[in-house]
This record gives sequence, structure tokens and C-alpha cells, in this order.
Amino acid sequence: MVEKYDVVIIGAGPVGLTLSTCLARWGYRIKHIDNRPEPTPTGRADGIQPRSLDLLRNMGLKRKIMAYEPAKVYEVAFWDPSAKGIHRTGTWASCPKFIDARYPFTTLLHQGMIERVFIEDIEKHGVQIQRPWTITGFQNDGQDSSYPVEVRLAHVDGTATETVRAKYLFSGEGARSFVRDQLGVKIHHLDPIAHVWGVMDGVVRTNFPDIKMKCTIHSDAGSIMVIPRENNMVRLYIQIASSTDPDWNPRKTATTEEVQQHAKDILKPYTISWDRVEWYSVYPIGQGIAERYTLDERVFMGGDACHTHSPKAGQGMNTAFLDAVNLAWKIHHVESGFAPRTLLSTYESERKLIAENLLNFDAKYSKLFSARIPSAGEVAGAASNEPAENEFVKTFKASCEFTSGYGVAYNPNTINWGPEHAAQHPLFLAYEKGTTQRPGRILTPATVTRVVDANVVHLEQEIPLNGSYRMYLFAGSPSKTSTALKDLATHIANPSSFYSIFAHREKDKDTPTDRYHEPHNPHTDFLSLCTVFNAPRSKISIAEMLPEVFARYRDHVYADDVWDQRVPDAKAAAHAKMGLDEESGGVVIVRPDGYVGCVVKLAEGKGTCEALNQYFGVLTGKKLGEERAAL
Amino acid sequence: MVEKYDVVIIGAGPVGLTLSTCLARWGYRIKHIDNRPEPTPTGRADGIQPRSLDLLRNMGLKRKIMAYEPAKVYEVAFWDPSAKGIHRTGTWASCPKFIDARYPFTTLLHQGMIERVFIEDIEKHGVQIQRPWTITGFQNDGQDSSYPVEVRLAHVDGTATETVRAKYLFSGEGARSFVRDQLGVKIHHLDPIAHVWGVMDGVVRTNFPDIKMKCTIHSDAGSIMVIPRENNMVRLYIQIASSTDPDWNPRKTATTEEVQQHAKDILKPYTISWDRVEWYSVYPIGQGIAERYTLDERVFMGGDACHTHSPKAGQGMNTAFLDAVNLAWKIHHVESGFAPRTLLSTYESERKLIAENLLNFDAKYSKLFSARIPSAGEVAGAASNEPAENEFVKTFKASCEFTSGYGVAYNPNTINWGPEHAAQHPLFLAYEKGTTQRPGRILTPATVTRVVDANVVHLEQEIPLNGSYRMYLFAGSPSKTSTALKDLATHIANPSSFYSIFAHREKDKDTPTDRYHEPHNPHTDFLSLCTVFNAPRSKISIAEMLPEVFARYRDHVYADDVWDQRVPDAKAAAHAKMGLDEESGGVVIVRPDGYVGCVVKLAEGKGTCEALNQYFGVLTGKKLGEERAAL
Repeated sequence: MVEKYDVVIIGAGPVGLTLSTCLARWGYRIKHIDNRPEPTPTGRADGIQPRSLDLLRNMGLKRKIMAYEPAKVYEVAFWDPSAKGIHRTGTWASCPKFIDARYPFTTLLHQGMIERVFIEDIEKHGVQIQRPWTITGFQNDGQDSSYPVEVRLAHVDGTATETVRAKYLFSGEGARSFVRDQLGVKIHHLDPIAHVWGVMDGVVRTNFPDIKMKCTIHSDAGSIMVIPRENNMVRLYIQIASSTDPDWNPRKTATTEEVQQHAKDILKPYTISWDRVEWYSVYPIGQGIAERYTLDERVFMGGDACHTHSPKAGQGMNTAFLDAVNLAWKIHHVESGFAPRTLLSTYESERKLIAENLLNFDAKYSKLFSARIPSAGEVAGAASNEPAENEFVKTFKASCEFTSGYGVAYNPNTINWGPEHAAQHPLFLAYEKGTTQRPGRILTPATVTRVVDANVVHLEQEIPLNGSYRMYLFAGSPSKTSTALKDLATHIANPSSFYSIFAHREKDKDTPTDRYHEPHNPHTDFLSLCTVFNAPRSKISIAEMLPEVFARYRDHVYADDVWDQRVPDAKAAAHAKMGLDEESGGVVIVRPDGYVGCVVKLAEGKGTCEALNQYFGVLTGKKLGEERAAL
Repeated sequence: MVEKYDVVIIGAGPVGLTLSTCLARWGYRIKHIDNRPEPTPTGRADGIQPRSLDLLRNMGLKRKIMAYEPAKVYEVAFWDPSAKGIHRTGTWASCPKFIDARYPFTTLLHQGMIERVFIEDIEKHGVQIQRPWTITGFQNDGQDSSYPVEVRLAHVDGTATETVRAKYLFSGEGARSFVRDQLGVKIHHLDPIAHVWGVMDGVVRTNFPDIKMKCTIHSDAGSIMVIPRENNMVRLYIQIASSTDPDWNPRKTATTEEVQQHAKDILKPYTISWDRVEWYSVYPIGQGIAERYTLDERVFMGGDACHTHSPKAGQGMNTAFLDAVNLAWKIHHVESGFAPRTLLSTYESERKLIAENLLNFDAKYSKLFSARIPSAGEVAGAASNEPAENEFVKTFKASCEFTSGYGVAYNPNTINWGPEHAAQHPLFLAYEKGTTQRPGRILTPATVTRVVDANVVHLEQEIPLNGSYRMYLFAGSPSKTSTALKDLATHIANPSSFYSIFAHREKDKDTPTDRYHEPHNPHTDFLSLCTVFNAPRSKISIAEMLPEVFARYRDHVYADDVWDQRVPDAKAAAHAKMGLDEESGGVVIVRPDGYVGCVVKLAEGKGTCEALNQYFGVLTGKKLGEERAAL
């Protein structure tokens, strides 16, 4: 008997662990291997961007990350050459105020600690990472239609082997991916320029005033990037060689002492010395992107196996998290019967675009970072005392939304509604025409009061990453929308609606499952539902103001009664931030990964439900609603 | 050889654990015993008030408390009799907006989980709770002047005994205190009325809409208090008997089923049933206060050993935390040679007053809670549809500051400056005359930007509970105060100043202790220092704007550049909240437990240092400053 798994995951770095964490929680059977004997002991990726922190919180992992007391980067300082060495030309917010972020900072913590947080969670759900094991072969041979992929695994010392079958195989192997090589997927190099980088984590003593800030330092002696770390450490990134150098050698290296001396020269007139070095590594960086993320929608790749780039913008791990979550919910919906297998094609189309944007940004940013900036003496003739903003600073500032993670914008497709979407109904609200919520972008955060317990909560976090679609019913003024709510309730209660078609089915009708205490999915795993009223909490009676269908989500009814500095004049700040009418409300559908799917007007009659049936009809590949019933 | 300890602590409930946690961290040798074989397994005290959460955060324990996912109470609902049973007459914030609290809610978690958080911390510092052991005798026999107290301990089964000597003995034994009995300290009963209470924790199903709120319910069938708990549980408090009953019997009891039936009758027309009961207990409550907290300032008592009352206002554990912290820093300062032994007398005078206030409140509140409220039928003749606010609700609202923990106000004494204080200098700023900070009350919270890393931080939390006095130098506008800062630096550098007299002494002058990485106490354990400028962060250069004495606290320099809704027109919100001039600033001295000691004007010349020397001269019992140097 060959063991069968839903998913075999190769590699326990950020992308593999995120995928494993999601799918293990949602009940899938997972084989997860890694060729290292233990998790990353030190160093490597360390920057968690604001949007990723939202995601980790949504997974219930943020508190554990924060328990390690990571450094937080709120601002970046720019240092340029001066007559005396270097001087600060300015600072800029890491995640400026124009970005509506809950956590407007980058969290710095070494990858091993982050991995441990995931691994503890995975183990709670019964999955053990099998180490040090590696993949030796695989084949989508279709011999078992349910488990079409055969995967051959071996202990790295060759003493043991195992052959298993899986529904899916996922490679989170990193830049050197066996799976990618076997598939023959090529890496496309966006920028032919290659670099050798040195990176050093350690505890220093210095009179350089910005040692606890993220700094980009250009001096006549070279360039360096400073990043604060947990445990009073500092990371320095130093470029050791570039393919644009006259004596370019991709194998060029440097000792710890050489890099430290280089740093000392760059930081002059300030002094720096090291109490200890925790980690030091030299590695070549090329900018590459895999041509495909999957060939057959059974064997997938993600993370560094698909895209490699410089570490300077702190994007690697963050992109990996989002790759994994994007794939996780799509596998879940296909395997749950909520969506046809074609949904899986959107993984590559959505995530490859983001990787391409990242590489374009990184190419520009890296080139500017490495470029020599004229020293003060050379620009002494300039008219102003304030140095003109150079291209590097301009690029940095322009890219904050992107680097914070909030710039991710998936294109319109079957799941991100747009004017060309197959679902066409007059009640769809287009971006900037009736709503500020743009399909393919993250839901805007909003603070509201939960009705049942008067807790002030973050609406966008109220539904955990449970694999369900999220329906936010902004219900406007109760007196104005009561008929619309009743009508919507009536129509979604129709057995052929998007809401009802995937209702829980009782395995045993005589002893139905008790879901009294189930807050998020009392009716269906397909969808979770929140209702937000434009009314003070004390005036909201769930039993009296909500039809039973919605009242059943009693822990997810909210009062939009918390003032927000971003919309100071709004009476109902959450409605206002969503760009919805404060009186008549609207319905925002959010994908399981937190990105907006579509926005629909809340209207009396059957229209709102019709529009939603149309949107979900495309996603699910089913005829939904009364049309279907009439068939 | 008799083992010697700095402190022997009897009882590992909240008061003993808090004391142990503080003193273990500060390096004291502790023997800590408890007569229970294990920590509280379930039930008992569970309410952490807003001020206590500040304290737990200051101890670095808040995150671990929150990891248990406690319930949070933001509002209280009042229910009164109606024609059909009960109806809600109103709700009120648990910690209303007029209280400037970081965490405007009560945190509900059973005592055992809270104890575990403390115990883990204590164990990290090398102290193990010895269980199940009890105290069998003690004597301040003065035979060893350093360790004057002999303490005799025994295993509860009598199989082992131990005699140790200690500098201090502390009883955190709870209401039945062996130590208190042996000392002959009497309990004074403030209110002769006694009660028998039932308390039940469990998971329920109900259509009562406020089951996740704190509720006080008065019905014709009796009164009940509802308190939400972690893990979807609900606690019900039900009075079973009162000494005012005609058939009063202090041994009256009730079964789980009887209490449940009683709750069902009270909650009509709503229904309630129990999925499971986690904990149920019946216990008599009397309101008592110990006449003394210590007789000799060697043997101390705190927590329930000193004050018992009803659990309804959720104050027991919170008062215990504050008893312990109040005593901990005073022992620490006496044992460190920072203060004479007379400081210890302020423990009883400060904490007994708070307990008396608590008992007065509790007596009034309990009486009102137990009183029958006329049912709707009886008041049908009332003119208004809104029921008049009854005495109970009025008392509740008036007491929010007290119950949140922010009402604690220690009277003027040697450590809380006031007009009668021995230190009299024209630069002292009296409460409401130049400052909003009142000695004996908690420092007002303020959000500022840390200069070194641009992190937005909570100023009142920046110095951990390290046993040190806290000096907040509100430095106003840098251009206005540069001379005053220089002058203050010059004078506090005088070896006889409050700042210098307790400077670290090197054990070995040839190899001085390396304090480069010490953020809070680089110069002395007596004091930690924060400087706050009224300037944007980017305009603050620590090296250029601060004399070396202050610059050395480089991790504690802040920009007062964060807008605050409470002082919307202020340019420097933290200065404004402290009631200090935004241009010229001021110095706020805060006791190690977070309560304001005194406020002094920041002036050019020697005056500011003189005033501080005078204040600390009274505390330390030393002549400080130039006067001393002249002796």
C-alpha cells in the first residue's frame, strides 16, 4: 500500500510552511519534507512587511512573532557623501501615512524564529516536518485519478526512501529547485546584471546616530544598507562585486574582517566596532523569474523557486507568504467542490505578475543603490542648501506602497470583478464609482464595535484565515435598509443561491452536528458573514434588526460608531472608508486571502442577490439563483 | 547552618507572586512556599482592571496574559425588572472615555492562567514555589541583625520541616492568614452585613442578548451578575443568602442545579441552559480590613490577608497586584541603601487607605446590588419612558475611575510631594498649578516617537518595572531650553546630587563593568531617565542637543510629535497632557511603581536640580547637592 496525501510539500522555508499551516488547519493530509536537519538556525530573510503582519495576525501567529521582540522599522534614513565623509540628507517613513496600514512598520526577526512559529502551529495540527529528507523524483502519471502524482522521497544520506501518492506536489525548495529543473521550467533573467553580496548580523558599538534605523548609505568608499534586528543586533548589507565592475568575478568573496573594514570606511566620520558577529554570508544574487509556476495544476512551485532578486527591499519572504496563501485557498476551494479546477490557473497569473513587478522594482532600486552618488565637493556649486533629491530617494519614496505589501493589485479575472467580468449586473459597484474598494486589492482596514460584547475590533481581522469567502454586509442605517436586508435574506435562503448551495450537509440526519458555538461557519464552509450597521452599538438589537439568516452570525454584527482620523467628518467611518453610502450601505465580497472580489449595491428586491449569484456563479462554475431553480 | 533569604513569601496567589516576580528580577534571594499542591486549577479571581494591565505590561507579562485569549469587557449592561421579566435599561462603558486609559476594558481570565504567567517568569529567575508547604511559626528575634526573622516551615503532611532566616517575611496567605493570627492583628469589619455567594463558570446556550457583556440583572426573582470569560465561558454570581435575610444562615448553600434554576428564573423571558459547568463554588463574604499591615516593618502582609470584600467590582486581584508592587520597590530601595527603613512605613499608610476606599465602595455597591428594585408594574405611573437612573447605576457610573484602577490616589507624604512636604522650593509645580500631574497618582499616558529608531511608543511604558525612580525630562523647545538643560546637567553631575550619589561603583577599577548596551540604568540603579523634546523627530540630534549626562540615555530620547485626540490643538501633545508649558517643559519624577512623586519647573541656573535634590533628600534621608558638598 502506497501512502496517500492531499499535498506533498518540499521545503520548509516561508513559502512551504505557510502553505502547510493553511492546509493543515483546513484538514488536509500533508507530507512535508525539508533537506536541512533543522530549521534555519540564524540569519537569512528577516523583514516582515506591514501587509504580511496583517496576514500573520489573520492566521493567529502575530502574537508569537512579537513575543520574540523583533526590531521595528518606522523610518528609513538616507545618507550621502559629504566633505567629511557622510551626512544624512533626509528620512522617510517606511510605510507613510497615505497608506492605511494597521502596522505602519517593518518587523525584523530572523527567519529561524519565524519558521519556528509556523512549525509549532503545524505540529498542533498533526504535521511533522520530515528532516533531512529530499525529493528524488515525481510524476503526474494519472494512474490514480484522485492521487495522480507519484512522489519519490529519500533521506539525504540515502539510507531510506519512500514513494507516496498525492493530489498535489508543491516545491518551496528555494532558488535551486529540483522540481523546477525536472519540469524543465526555465528561469528568465530580467536584468542581466548580477551581484555578489555580503550580509552580516552582529552586535556593534558605534556613534553613528541612525544605527537603529534602516539606512541606505552612499559614500565615496561604497554603499551599505543598515537594518536593525532583534536582540540589539544590526544587519549590514554590503555589495562585494557587481557584473558591471571591470574585474567582475561572480566567485569573488570577502572575509568578515574585510567587510567590517569596508563598513568602517563607508561610515566615516563615525566609528563602528563589533562585539560579536552572529551570522555572515556571501552570496550571488541574480534577478530571475520562472517562466511557469505550474504546468499541470498538480505540481506547483512558489517562493524563491519562482523568483529571486536582491534582499534590499525586504520582499523575498513576504512574496513567499502571499504565494502560499494564494495557492492554499484555491486548492481548498477546488478540493471542497466549491470551484472547478480552472480556479487553479489564477495562481500563476496572479502571483507571476506580482513577481514581475517586484523584479522590475528591484532592478531599478538595485542599480540606483549601487550607483555612485556625487560627493558633496562635486555638487558644491548647487544653489540650494538642501541637497536635491536623488533618483534613489525618489524611487524609494515612490515604491513605499509596493514595498509595504499594500501595492499588490491582482488584475481583473474570474475572481476579481471588473468591467469585462462575465457577471454583468447593474448593481455591481465599480472602483471609484460607488466604492473605494478595488477588486484584486486588499480590503481597507476599519475599526468598529462588536455588538455582542462591545469590544472595539479591527473589522478586517474579524474573520480568521479560515479558507472561506468573506461577505461584508454594510447595512447602512437600519431604518433605511430593513427591507433590503429582508429581501436579501429571502433570496439567499433560496436553496440554489451562492449562500445555500454549499450549506453543511449532515452526515447523519438523526444526530445533526451541533454548530451552536460555531462563530464563523455556522451554515457553510464556503462563506463567513459580517454585518455592519451605521448605528451606535447600544441601538442595535440583533434579534430585532436582522433576519435570522444574518442574525445567526451573532458574533459578527458590528456598529460603525468609531471615529476615524482618516474620515473625520464621517458619521459611519467604516462605510465611508469603503466608499459606500452611509445610509444605504453595500455588500463587499472578499476572497479568502483578504483581497476584494466584488462590491454590490444593497438594494431592495432580488437584485443584490442576483448580482452576487452571478459573481459566485463564475467562481463556482455553477448556475446559481432562481435562474438555476427554473432550469 | 541555617539557610538565609532576603524574603520568605507565604502564599502563591496574586499578591505573593507579584512580590516574588519583582524581587526575583531585582536579584533578591527568595523562599516562596504555598500550601496548595499546584496553582489554582480553575475559577477564583479573574478580572484584570485597565490599570493592572498597564502594570502587567510594564512587567513584560501582558503578552503572555493575552495569549490565553481572555474575554474583554468594554461595557456593562444594566437590566431591571419589567412586566415580562427583565429588560435592559442602559449600558455604560466599563472604563469611560473621560479616563485616559491605554486599555479601556477589563480583561477576564481565570486566576490559574494568570498565576502560571507569573510562575514561569519567577522560575526564569531561579525561584521555585515550594509546594505543598506551610508556615508553622516565625519570630523577629533580632538574633541576626541582617536576617532578623526566623521562619519555620513544614510540608503540609508533616513529613519535613525547615527553619530559615530572612530579612523579611511576607504573608500573601489569603483571608485565613496564619501570620496575621500569630501577630494578633485584628480584622476590622467595616460593614456588619455578611453574604453567601454562589459563583459558576460554564459554557451556556441562551437567547439573552448580553451574555458576552458584563451585566447586572435585577429581577423580581432576584439578582445576578454576568461576566464573560475566556474559552466562550460565562461566569454568574448569584447571592444565596444575606445576613439581612429573615432566615439568615451563614452556612446556607445551594446545589449547581438550584443556582441554575435560580438563574433561569431571573433571566426570564430569556432562556438559558448549560453545556458544561467548569467551576462552581459557594462562599461567605464579609468585608474586613486588617488593622495593621505590619507591626515591625519586617513581617508584612498584603492582598486578601489584609482586606476581604465581595467579588462584584472585580477588585481583589488588582488590589493585590498593587499591594505587592508598592512593597516590592520599597524593600528594594531600603535594601539597596537608597532610602532609610522609614520608607517601609509608607506601605501600610498608602495601601490601607486604598483598601478602606475599596471597602467603602464595595459596601455601598453590594448593598445596592442586593436591594430589590421595584418592578415595572410598580413604577408604571412614572412619567418618562426611560426609567429613571436608580441608585445602583448612579453608584456604578460614579465609581468607574475607582474600579478601573486609575482612581488610586496616595496622600501626600515623604514620597508624594505636596504643599506640606519638607522639600519647599519655588520651582515645585503643584497639581493644577503648572501641571496636571498629581503626586500620588499614576503618570498620564502619552504617545511619542523614539528618536533612535523612530518607533511610535507609549512613553509611560518605556521604562520597565526595574525598581528605579523615573525622571521624565520634558525638554520643551530645544532652542528655548538649551541653557536650562546644560545647567541641569552640570548640577546633577555634582557628586553629591540625587543623580550622582548612587552612581554605580566599580567592584574592580581595572576592569570596569561594560555598560555600553545598558539602556535603562547606565549610570545608577536608583534612577532611569527619559528626555522628551517638543520637536519633530527628524530635527532632534541627540549628540548635538543633549548634554552627555542625558545623551547617555540614548534609547530614551523622544520627540513629542504625535497628535493626540485628547489635546487636538497641542503641538506637543505629551507636554500638553502633563500640563507643562510646551516651550519651557518641566521635570516629572515618577516613583518606581508608576505614581508621580513630584513635578519641578525646568529653569536655567541651579534651581531645578536644587528642588530635585530637596525632594530626593527627603526620600533618601541624605543631604544632597551643593549644600551637602559645603558641609
